[in-house]
Amino acid sequence: MKWSKSYLYTLKDAPADAEIPSHQLMVRAGLIRKVAPGIYTYGNLALRAIRKLETIIREELDKRGCQEVLMPMVHPAELWRETGRWSEMGDGLLKFENRNGHEFCLGATHEEVVTDYIRKDIKSYRDMPANLYQIQTKYRDEIRPRFGLMRGREFIMKDAYSFDPDPAGALKSYDLMYDGYKAIFDRLGLRYRIVEADAGNIGGSKTHEFQVLAEAGEDHLMVCDTCDFAANIEVAPALDEAPRASGEAGLKPMEEFATPNLKSIGALSKATGVPERELVKTMFFAAGEGPRDGRLGGDGGVPESGGLSPVAVLLRGSDEVNPIKLKNALGLVNSPLLLTEKEVKEVTGAWPGSCGPVGLDIPVYMDTGVADLKNFIVGANKDAFHLKNVNIGRDFKATKIADIRMAKVGDKCPKCDGAYKSMRGIEVGHVFYLGATYSKAMGATFLKEDGSNHPIEMGCYGIGVSRTVQAAIEQAHDKDGIAWPIGIAPFHVHIVVLDPDNPEVLQSAEIVYRDLGARGLDVFMDDRVERPGVKFKDADLLGMPIRINIGGRGLANGEVEVITRKTKEMRKVKLEDAVEAVASMATQMKKAGARA
Amino acid sequence: MKWSKSYLYTLKDAPADAEIPSHQLMVRAGLIRKVAPGIYTYGNLALRAIRKLETIIREELDKRGCQEVLMPMVHPAELWRETGRWSEMGDGLLKFENRNGHEFCLGATHEEVVTDYIRKDIKSYRDMPANLYQIQTKYRDEIRPRFGLMRGREFIMKDAYSFDPDPAGALKSYDLMYDGYKAIFDRLGLRYRIVEADAGNIGGSKTHEFQVLAEAGEDHLMVCDTCDFAANIEVAPALDEAPRASGEAGLKPMEEFATPNLKSIGALSKATGVPERELVKTMFFAAGEGPRDGRLGGDGGVPESGGLSPVAVLLRGSDEVNPIKLKNALGLVNSPLLLTEKEVKEVTGAWPGSCGPVGLDIPVYMDTGVADLKNFIVGANKDAFHLKNVNIGRDFKATKIADIRMAKVGDKCPKCDGAYKSMRGIEVGHVFYLGATYSKAMGATFLKEDGSNHPIEMGCYGIGVSRTVQAAIEQAHDKDGIAWPIGIAPFHVHIVVLDPDNPEVLQSAEIVYRDLGARGLDVFMDDRVERPGVKFKDADLLGMPIRINIGGRGLANGEVEVITRKTKEMRKVKLEDAVEAVASMATQMKKAGARA
Repeated sequence: MKWSKSYLYTLKDAPADAEIPSHQLMVRAGLIRKVAPGIYTYGNLALRAIRKLETIIREELDKRGCQEVLMPMVHPAELWRETGRWSEMGDGLLKFENRNGHEFCLGATHEEVVTDYIRKDIKSYRDMPANLYQIQTKYRDEIRPRFGLMRGREFIMKDAYSFDPDPAGALKSYDLMYDGYKAIFDRLGLRYRIVEADAGNIGGSKTHEFQVLAEAGEDHLMVCDTCDFAANIEVAPALDEAPRASGEAGLKPMEEFATPNLKSIGALSKATGVPERELVKTMFFAAGEGPRDGRLGGDGGVPESGGLSPVAVLLRGSDEVNPIKLKNALGLVNSPLLLTEKEVKEVTGAWPGSCGPVGLDIPVYMDTGVADLKNFIVGANKDAFHLKNVNIGRDFKATKIADIRMAKVGDKCPKCDGAYKSMRGIEVGHVFYLGATYSKAMGATFLKEDGSNHPIEMGCYGIGVSRTVQAAIEQAHDKDGIAWPIGIAPFHVHIVVLDPDNPEVLQSAEIVYRDLGARGLDVFMDDRVERPGVKFKDADLLGMPIRINIGGRGLANGEVEVITRKTKEMRKVKLEDAVEAVASMATQMKKAGARA
Repeated sequence: MKWSKSYLYTLKDAPADAEIPSHQLMVRAGLIRKVAPGIYTYGNLALRAIRKLETIIREELDKRGCQEVLMPMVHPAELWRETGRWSEMGDGLLKFENRNGHEFCLGATHEEVVTDYIRKDIKSYRDMPANLYQIQTKYRDEIRPRFGLMRGREFIMKDAYSFDPDPAGALKSYDLMYDGYKAIFDRLGLRYRIVEADAGNIGGSKTHEFQVLAEAGEDHLMVCDTCDFAANIEVAPALDEAPRASGEAGLKPMEEFATPNLKSIGALSKATGVPERELVKTMFFAAGEGPRDGRLGGDGGVPESGGLSPVAVLLRGSDEVNPIKLKNALGLVNSPLLLTEKEVKEVTGAWPGSCGPVGLDIPVYMDTGVADLKNFIVGANKDAFHLKNVNIGRDFKATKIADIRMAKVGDKCPKCDGAYKSMRGIEVGHVFYLGATYSKAMGATFLKEDGSNHPIEMGCYGIGVSRTVQAAIEQAHDKDGIAWPIGIAPFHVHIVVLDPDNPEVLQSAEIVYRDLGARGLDVFMDDRVERPGVKFKDADLLGMPIRINIGGRGLANGEVEVITRKTKEMRKVKLEDAVEAVASMATQMKKAGARA
């Protein structure tokens, strides 16, 4: 493609609402233009990158026996009512009435539609395994869309759904997709980690996320520094770096002591000389369910009705509660909300800062980090008083001991002797084992060999197509612009014609352009009448992996310049060797990308 | 693809709501499944046909310098308000509020979004010509969706938009797209006609429709039996077969006569002995504008406010009014509504059946067919009376004489001496010259060489992608199933393995399957354990252009059967020659298709 014949406009400045580099660069390079918050038009270059990604996805999924279909974007309410998600999904699901007064929503995900599709066809165990996928435009009514395509409202997604007669088959399908995703992200040449994750409220019980590593990532990952273990912080097991030295063996008698103005763990530690990691803090949550925003962690919604169902949560003073782990320990769909100070006073008789588990008649959830402590200090449920030498079992009972704290850098890896380090990631893919949640709700059943009727075992598998393209840019850019991984680069080669008015230069450029194209490379040529400086800046911004500068001065020596975008390494190559040299660079980059 | 590994379920019976063959066949062959009225899931085979069509479209448009982009499906109301279409489009435009209370609609077409996109970039005449296209899912809230993908609510469309500095450039872009569309539909191997058409309310002034010929088509076409002239009946010029013999020269004195119970043209003709084509009927319309359904012809909506603005319309008794021509003669956006009987009585003093133009003080629109008549009969505007020997000019004045009648089979071609014949068509494409309607409304202007500022000249160009696939089936099927044109057939070849349990048969089939694939053909293999009769029926239903039957009996003679789906012609071919024979048949079919 030649710039002179293209619809391509680069911008010097990024818009004010573009907070992260990839968003800024995508707008500046003309890849996307905002139509409304979270809603974009994709320019030709963005579409080329998207198509390349789609092709890789299709090849890897088709190879694994998946079948592509296309489901609609507008869904009738009836299907979502069958699973209860019409109300459960909250305001992220955009609902409307059509002209005849029938209720619909815009598809944010397709479990309901695909289950309806297959329940009409799959009747027997012989009809499975089956795996249907689509690459399709979805809509989620994000309350605060931001970061461009990273958290947009309208986005392109690949979603796949597997159908098996039993859990063993479903887990086999899961593993097949897990391998397929690895193959896809390997081919893209992205640095990514596969992490354990929370199944959220989609109804599943096993899940992994594919996280592209990038500073601006919204997800916090705990990654082992030794083995390949990695987990989203939401679920990363918290194991102390070293077992706590047990200094004291015997249980001392419990004592109340005055702690005026000592409301924080820090102040208490200072006043008592006990390290924060040996103090115990007590927090209070409402364990009731209520409709929230469909996203993990909610966005501050409140339970619709019903009592508070207060629970106490005990953690070491140095630890933080992990709302996802707590949600799972409590068996809830959504993360529980903290009680207000007034509610705490009602439940315990004291204001926060002086509360503890002793004497309460509500469930007490204890973090594993507290379980080993003896003779510890907690609030006395009496303002400005604490208790010391408190002991589990003797002074209060724990309803449940569980890992409900945030893991930390340096914590021990659960799989080896390594330690956690921290990384940021952009979730670009996930695999979920769903079980029979949807099939049961929607009556998608089949006959086994023995004639008995069973719900179908399902899995669902997503790749954020538009998001992956931006994640690639977030991972691969510098101050001057994008440095596309060759697997999804809109073009492999960018030819800069330095003197388009010079017929010899233009002719040489045309020949290189044509011959590289004939070698199967996608070539872009900047043949505009512009100053070299402008063209170089644009070439760096657009970020094709290989650039060729062709100008009169170089040609006088029979040479052109070949530049690797990522390293900015430049070498002079004889004009007649340029095509061969560039083609071989591209081949090497493709191989290296697949190993990244 | 092998059936045993596919998600493919054929049905014996079509659903009750499938009225036309293509709809019935698409459901029976598993190509589409209804999710809600007018909303479908596309199965894998349908998607393969769609992708082939999309590839052909992309190749032909890219070749002509068009650039693919992707615009969103959710549009902010602000853009549609700029052109006034937020209210003008009526209920076909599906509108909703998002969670923040902002108004949006689902994109039914993209003039507003694309004009907003380019107005930020195109600043100078040097930025043009430009042509942007997308292949994208659209939604129109059809009041009565039917015929499957033919008149659906959610559908896939290719829409393109051209931008030029002046009308001459815009018409050049128009011609380029016209040629591109011809190339596309030629490659599909469809029988189609390019017809003149009405520009509707999209704002244009020149337009052609690409109509696939099929009995079930919703469009009525008038096609010359001699030259290539063709027009949608909506705009087909009405020219009498032969000039009317002028029997009488002098004007006779006008006379009133009693016509009790003669309210219809038929009864009047019978009673007076004057042929219907020499009688004149008077009709009354309300020429006011009001919001209607966005579709041509409206669906019975009524003007929102304002007076009736009644007009009289004169036609020969044997002719019918053409609402589109009348709309254009009146300069309206929507077709005018007939006055009610009561309104006619108020305007004329008489009930319908006794009304005429003499003595009225409202505009009189006269069809050209009436203009040559002399001494004719009209209603007297007095119940049960008519006037005879009425003459134009002497007895009443015509506000405008125009072609406002429906053309008929046998009418003279406006381009040659040929005559009209009638055809039915399915509109699969259209090209529109829009002028500056949208650019003016949205401030999309550019600077000319002389520094003056001008609105951009636009064109828009649509192909109904999903509709074209169904139109192909509507045109190419028989009682047993689909007979895909090879250009968009999901697979070129369908291998029926008659005895999959016989290892020799299966092995031979596998080799043919592999070798045809290696020749670049898309091959489907029915390797199910089913009776031959079932497989033959399914092969006819699915309709791939070439079928190969491979069975034990044939192989005993070293033979397989090769069947052409369209003609059902069968020939026996030596196993070792089968691949060559089938590959050469496919090549011939592709060539023939491109000539169809």
